[in-house]
Amino acid sequence: MPKIIIAGGGLVGAMLANILAESSFEIHVIEKRHNPFVSGFQEKGRSINLALSTRGWHALQRIGLERELLSHAIPMYGRAIHHLSNEISFQPYSIDNQAIYSVSRNTLNLLLLKRLQNFSNVVVHYQKKIVSADIFTAEVHTECGDTFKADALIGADGAFSSIQQAFTKTDRFSFCRKYISHGYKELSIPPDSRGDFVWNPNALHIFPRKRFMLIALPNCNKTFTATLFLDFEGEESFEKLSDEAKVSAFFKTYFEDFVRVAPNFVSEFFENPTSSLGMVSCEPWYRGKTLLIGDAAHAIVPFYGQGMNAGFEDCLILEECLQKSPCDIFKAFQVFADSRKPDTDAIAELAMRNFIEMRDLVTDERFLAKKQIERELVKMAPDVWIPQYSLVTFSRIPYRKALEIGELQDKLLDEVLSQNLSLWQAVEQFKNLRTC
Amino acid sequence: MPKIIIAGGGLVGAMLANILAESSFEIHVIEKRHNPFVSGFQEKGRSINLALSTRGWHALQRIGLERELLSHAIPMYGRAIHHLSNEISFQPYSIDNQAIYSVSRNTLNLLLLKRLQNFSNVVVHYQKKIVSADIFTAEVHTECGDTFKADALIGADGAFSSIQQAFTKTDRFSFCRKYISHGYKELSIPPDSRGDFVWNPNALHIFPRKRFMLIALPNCNKTFTATLFLDFEGEESFEKLSDEAKVSAFFKTYFEDFVRVAPNFVSEFFENPTSSLGMVSCEPWYRGKTLLIGDAAHAIVPFYGQGMNAGFEDCLILEECLQKSPCDIFKAFQVFADSRKPDTDAIAELAMRNFIEMRDLVTDERFLAKKQIERELVKMAPDVWIPQYSLVTFSRIPYRKALEIGELQDKLLDEVLSQNLSLWQAVEQFKNLRTC
Repeated sequence: MPKIIIAGGGLVGAMLANILAESSFEIHVIEKRHNPFVSGFQEKGRSINLALSTRGWHALQRIGLERELLSHAIPMYGRAIHHLSNEISFQPYSIDNQAIYSVSRNTLNLLLLKRLQNFSNVVVHYQKKIVSADIFTAEVHTECGDTFKADALIGADGAFSSIQQAFTKTDRFSFCRKYISHGYKELSIPPDSRGDFVWNPNALHIFPRKRFMLIALPNCNKTFTATLFLDFEGEESFEKLSDEAKVSAFFKTYFEDFVRVAPNFVSEFFENPTSSLGMVSCEPWYRGKTLLIGDAAHAIVPFYGQGMNAGFEDCLILEECLQKSPCDIFKAFQVFADSRKPDTDAIAELAMRNFIEMRDLVTDERFLAKKQIERELVKMAPDVWIPQYSLVTFSRIPYRKALEIGELQDKLLDEVLSQNLSLWQAVEQFKNLRTC
Repeated sequence: MPKIIIAGGGLVGAMLANILAESSFEIHVIEKRHNPFVSGFQEKGRSINLALSTRGWHALQRIGLERELLSHAIPMYGRAIHHLSNEISFQPYSIDNQAIYSVSRNTLNLLLLKRLQNFSNVVVHYQKKIVSADIFTAEVHTECGDTFKADALIGADGAFSSIQQAFTKTDRFSFCRKYISHGYKELSIPPDSRGDFVWNPNALHIFPRKRFMLIALPNCNKTFTATLFLDFEGEESFEKLSDEAKVSAFFKTYFEDFVRVAPNFVSEFFENPTSSLGMVSCEPWYRGKTLLIGDAAHAIVPFYGQGMNAGFEDCLILEECLQKSPCDIFKAFQVFADSRKPDTDAIAELAMRNFIEMRDLVTDERFLAKKQIERELVKMAPDVWIPQYSLVTFSRIPYRKALEIGELQDKLLDEVLSQNLSLWQAVEQFKNLRTC
């Protein structure tokens, strides 16, 4: 039975262990946190809710957890835009009522780890912080002096992966970590006086304000978690919000709707951390006996809600590669790395573009006119014209294809808006160009 | 007297120490190698000769070393192109006989370190390998257990800088290290039977072969050092050159001229290392009490011969910044970092483009036709139309300007080649657009 070490028992590590558990592998998951079934997970400064969509659901279906998770998930059918005027407008994510799901990171992680207890060939080693690794011998060393060695090593330990770190010490490993100028801070919105959600829970709430924005996702306990995305430095920035009066004034000016329902936002603002937003891109993902996967290989900004979804899809695709090379794990690693990277490069790009869209374009007239045209095109030819957002969120078409198709659509929408093309001509041209 | 630690006593660290030695600083240079005045420097796998041009000369002039170095430098007035047919053609670097200079890395480094012995306020600590640093307290720790602490710390310790490494452990430090698919290997060409250079020593010899190339620079002892740039993997690659017969056949096919004068190339090929080619881009360069400079901040590929020249120019610009803020070292660091980065980004881009030009375009007909037109333009208006190569190599115009001007020139040359513009019109348009 080949032995595999999975570094990290977070979302991607635990999902991968679940998927591989059914193959003939002996799996050791090395996790730095405490055993949550003893003491619970408590993580400050990590995003506490996530938007699960089709790619993520597929992985949950693969391991039969989708029903159980559904009872902990809240469907969001579109964006509720909170304008500066306090008007709210609703933009559905699809014309056929498809939803993304607000789920709690902790709940999902616990479900995944709990399911691993059913497998005798899987051991999760808690409180083992990896301090070094040898990617050529598949060996890791932990802070408390343990050494684990296996036939293969998979680094699923996040954007600041210790395994990624070991890759950077080898020659010809290209590595980029980039931060954007914005940071984020989480704030809470309690239930209303009747114990109910203060807003429609079946929407992702957005306050787009050009250079910055606030969003809010519903939680099962009738609260919302709001996240402010704001420049670290500059005219309107975290740096400028240096005392309670300034924070209060800033929120009253830009987020009046929010201020009305978030009684503790000022004190929370100073209690909660301001976190940075970075991305990781590197190559190769596979070297020696070791593979990087999930955020360790391709961390992205959160604005398309695809970080976890892309990581879960990695697990499905890696399983396919292993099934195609049952006798050669390393060939599977190589095929996975080569075929998957162009897709994660594409979602990295899309996630940055969606930030512009969310904070800015959702109130832009030209953008809204194009969205209106797109809705008509979708009604006319629903099987042909599938918007980019749907391709990314509600399908498993490779991300790189979604990027290409979206760019083609954008050009055609510009043509329709400039009245150079009729709606039918746009559909016809799209059909022809897509098949090229 | 403020105390400054300079990490690294290589070319840039030693140059900076020389320049700052005349200010009222106490300077400690921390160098991992042995004291060369006891045992000499011996470095395997580093490029042993370099092309010094105007930016580098300015720094040498600043410290009065230019005359002494000139006696160790060989002027190269242009490129000697060795065609596959064994013909050699000469492309001058300028119309007025300007040269770049082949110098030995070791000779130059020794001259710089020797000059430091004249200053009582400078100490070079040899055999001190830095293993960690605190960029907020300006403190470094060495492998042998020493700690050095100062008012400010400057990391001039190269592309794999230990100080850069300390920056990567702080939040919001964007860092990219990228490798190109090519590697390089050095090979030697001895003097001929009469003890003279085998080829014209006053040229940089190039064998451009599309995906790969060989270059050769003259040394003072009448030898040449040749460097093969070749893909690591692929059809024609280091990987494929796995035995003596293959190496011999490859060189005979593509570099017959070289084979004739390099009796030991086959054995050297297997004795000498194959080195990778990477670049570093990062931000910010200044944080806490620490500044990155030279390759530690902006390593580039060697194809424009500007790595050392850019690092030396860094030292001159940092001195200017320190002179403008005599009471605030850190303000000077900040101004240096903000103003210099766009220029080193530009030379990084230009260096990659010059690789394409050197290995490929120097034999391309369209490229040669444009070069011919450019020579005519330079003759017509020598004070107006200064080619990009000259701006980079023979001037101190900021690299970002050289990049912009070159792109403008390239467009105008295309227009002249397509007969949309006369030569005079190109000059006039260039004048007008440059002033915009």
